[in-house]
Amino acid sequence: MIERQPSDWQGVRTLVTGGLGFIGSNLVHRLHALGATVMVVDALIPGHGGNRANLDGLGDAVEVIIGDLRDRDLMESLVATQDVIFNLAGQISHEDSTRDPFTDLEHNTRAPLTLLEACRATNPTVKIIKTATRQQYGRPQYLPVDERHPMQPVDANGVNTWAGEQYHLLYHRVHGMRTCSLRLTNTYGPRQVTDRHTQGALGFFIGRALDGQPITLYDGGQAIRDINYVADVVEALVLAGENDTAIGETFNLGSPPVTLRQFVETLGEIVGGVAVHDIPFPPQRKQIDIGDYYGEYGKISRMLHWTPHTDLRDGLTQTVAWHRANTHARKEGAP
Amino acid sequence: MIERQPSDWQGVRTLVTGGLGFIGSNLVHRLHALGATVMVVDALIPGHGGNRANLDGLGDAVEVIIGDLRDRDLMESLVATQDVIFNLAGQISHEDSTRDPFTDLEHNTRAPLTLLEACRATNPTVKIIKTATRQQYGRPQYLPVDERHPMQPVDANGVNTWAGEQYHLLYHRVHGMRTCSLRLTNTYGPRQVTDRHTQGALGFFIGRALDGQPITLYDGGQAIRDINYVADVVEALVLAGENDTAIGETFNLGSPPVTLRQFVETLGEIVGGVAVHDIPFPPQRKQIDIGDYYGEYGKISRMLHWTPHTDLRDGLTQTVAWHRANTHARKEGAP
Repeated sequence: MIERQPSDWQGVRTLVTGGLGFIGSNLVHRLHALGATVMVVDALIPGHGGNRANLDGLGDAVEVIIGDLRDRDLMESLVATQDVIFNLAGQISHEDSTRDPFTDLEHNTRAPLTLLEACRATNPTVKIIKTATRQQYGRPQYLPVDERHPMQPVDANGVNTWAGEQYHLLYHRVHGMRTCSLRLTNTYGPRQVTDRHTQGALGFFIGRALDGQPITLYDGGQAIRDINYVADVVEALVLAGENDTAIGETFNLGSPPVTLRQFVETLGEIVGGVAVHDIPFPPQRKQIDIGDYYGEYGKISRMLHWTPHTDLRDGLTQTVAWHRANTHARKEGAP
Repeated sequence: MIERQPSDWQGVRTLVTGGLGFIGSNLVHRLHALGATVMVVDALIPGHGGNRANLDGLGDAVEVIIGDLRDRDLMESLVATQDVIFNLAGQISHEDSTRDPFTDLEHNTRAPLTLLEACRATNPTVKIIKTATRQQYGRPQYLPVDERHPMQPVDANGVNTWAGEQYHLLYHRVHGMRTCSLRLTNTYGPRQVTDRHTQGALGFFIGRALDGQPITLYDGGQAIRDINYVADVVEALVLAGENDTAIGETFNLGSPPVTLRQFVETLGEIVGGVAVHDIPFPPQRKQIDIGDYYGEYGKISRMLHWTPHTDLRDGLTQTVAWHRANTHARKEGAP
C-alpha cells in the first residue's frame, strides 16, 4: 500500500455521491479512517444498491443527506464547501437500462451533468473523481482493452455512462475544472448486495454460495473477466483524489484475468463447496453480453502507482467473512 | 448523380423529423420530387432553425405535424406506418449547449431515444437514418478524421449528439433494428437561417454578404473546414435510405478542404464584394473551437457511392440566388 502521511487527508472536506451504495460506502469508511471530513448524498433509489447499514460503525461522524443529484439547488448547497467530490452515484444494471433506458439516462447522464453545473456555479476549483464503467467499451475489439479502445456499448447503460463521464472530461477541457474518471470493471467485496444479479453478478454468486444454493454459469463459465476487490478500487479512488496528475485523465482499473468458473470454484473452496448449474447462454442475455473482457491498467499503474494488491482468494475470504458477520446488510435497504 | 428508377421511392412512406429546418426541409423537397409520401414532424422550437416557409411550394402534399419527439404517444402514432424515417431533429448550436447543456440533452439525447423506443414498440423493421455531427470528434488528433477517430467533444452538444447517435447503432446491434448514422460537417445552402451564427457560421456569413455587411474572421480565417452544399448532404441521406448496406454503419460526410477565408472570398466574388473584418480569436470562443477539421469520407464513397458533387462556387451561386429570390425565408420562423 501507498505510504501516507497522517496529515494528507486530515480535515479534507469530501462529498461521496452514492455513498450508501457498495463501492461508495467502502470509500466512505476509508476516507473517514484517513481523517477526511466525509459527507454523503444518496437518493436511496430502489434497485440501485444503497443501504444505510453500509455506514454502520461510523455513528454521527459522517453526515448523510438523502437527496437526488438532479436537484440543482440541493447540489449547489452540498458542493459549495467541498475539497474533493467522489461522484459514484448511478444506475448500474445493464438489464434495467435495456428495459427502461430513460431512467438510466436520468441517473447516469442528467444527474452527473447537474452535479457539474452546480460545481461550475459555486465551486469551480473542487476536485471531482468520477466512476465510469468498462461497459462503455462494449464487446472488445482487442484484448486487453486500453483507454483508447473505441466505444461501442451494448446497452443504454454504456451510452449514458459514457456521456456522464465525458461531461466531466469536457468540463476540464473547456472550463478548466479538476476532474478525472476511473473506469471500473467487475468488483466484489463487503457491502455489495448479494440477493440480485442486477447489482453485479459477482455479488449474486457470493450470495448463492453463502446460502448453499447452486450457481448458474453460462457456456461453462469460460468468460474471462478482470475482477477487483473493493478495497483496491477504493485505493484507486483515494489515489486519484490526492494526485493532481490524475486531472483530465481517464483510467482503466483491472486485474490479472480469470474465468468466471475460476471465480466460482475459488468461492466454493472458501465457503466449503458450491454446486454449479451449467446451461447454455440464454439468447436474451447474449444480446447484451460483451464476451471476454479484461482491461489494460498500465496507465493508472504508471501515473498513480496503483496496482490491485488483493488476490482473489484473499479478497473472497475477507468478503465471505464479512457477509457471515453482517447478514443484515446483504440485501438492499436492509434492515 | 445516381441514376434512379422512378419507382425507387414511389409511394415509400417517409417521416422527416426536423423537416421544417434547414437540411430537413431540403430533404423533404427532394423526397417529394422522388415520389415518396412525406410526413414531417417538427417542434418549431425557437432557435432551432425551423420555418414553415421552408416547405413553400409543396402545398398539401406533405403532412406537417408540429410536435416534440419526446412525446412518446405522438411518436408511436407517427412512426407506426412509416417505411423510412430520417431523424434530423435536434439542437445544433455549440454555444447554446455550453450555456444550457440540459436543454441540449433533452433534444439531442432524450428525443432520439424516445423515437427509437417508439419504433421498437410499434414498427421495429422501419429503416432509420440519423444525422450526427463531426462535433462529436472534438479537436482532431489527426487529419483527415475517419470514423474511428476517438470521441473527445469540446461541448455538451458533441456529447449529447454522440449519445443520440449511439442509441441508434445500439438498437441495431441489440434489437436488430435497421439504423445508420451520417456525421455531417459544415453545410450551407438554400433554406438555412442567415441571421444568427448559432445556426451555422456559413449561413451567417452568407447573410452578412447579402446585406452588404462586413464579415468577421478570427486569426485570418485560416481555419480549415470541409464544407458541403446541402443538395449533396440530401443525396447522402437518400442513398443511405435506399441502400441496405448502410444498416448498422456510421459515415462521415466531407469535401475537399478549404479555409474559411477561401469560403468568404468566393462568396464575395459572387455577391459583388464583401468586406472582411480580421480580429484575433476571442478567448471565450477558442475554448470550444476545434481548430482545423476535415473528414475522411472514403467509407461512404465506397459503400454508398456518394461524393460531394457541387463545388463551392456553384453551391454559393445557387445559394445566393435562392436567398435573393426568397428573402422572406432568411430568418427563422419568418414570415
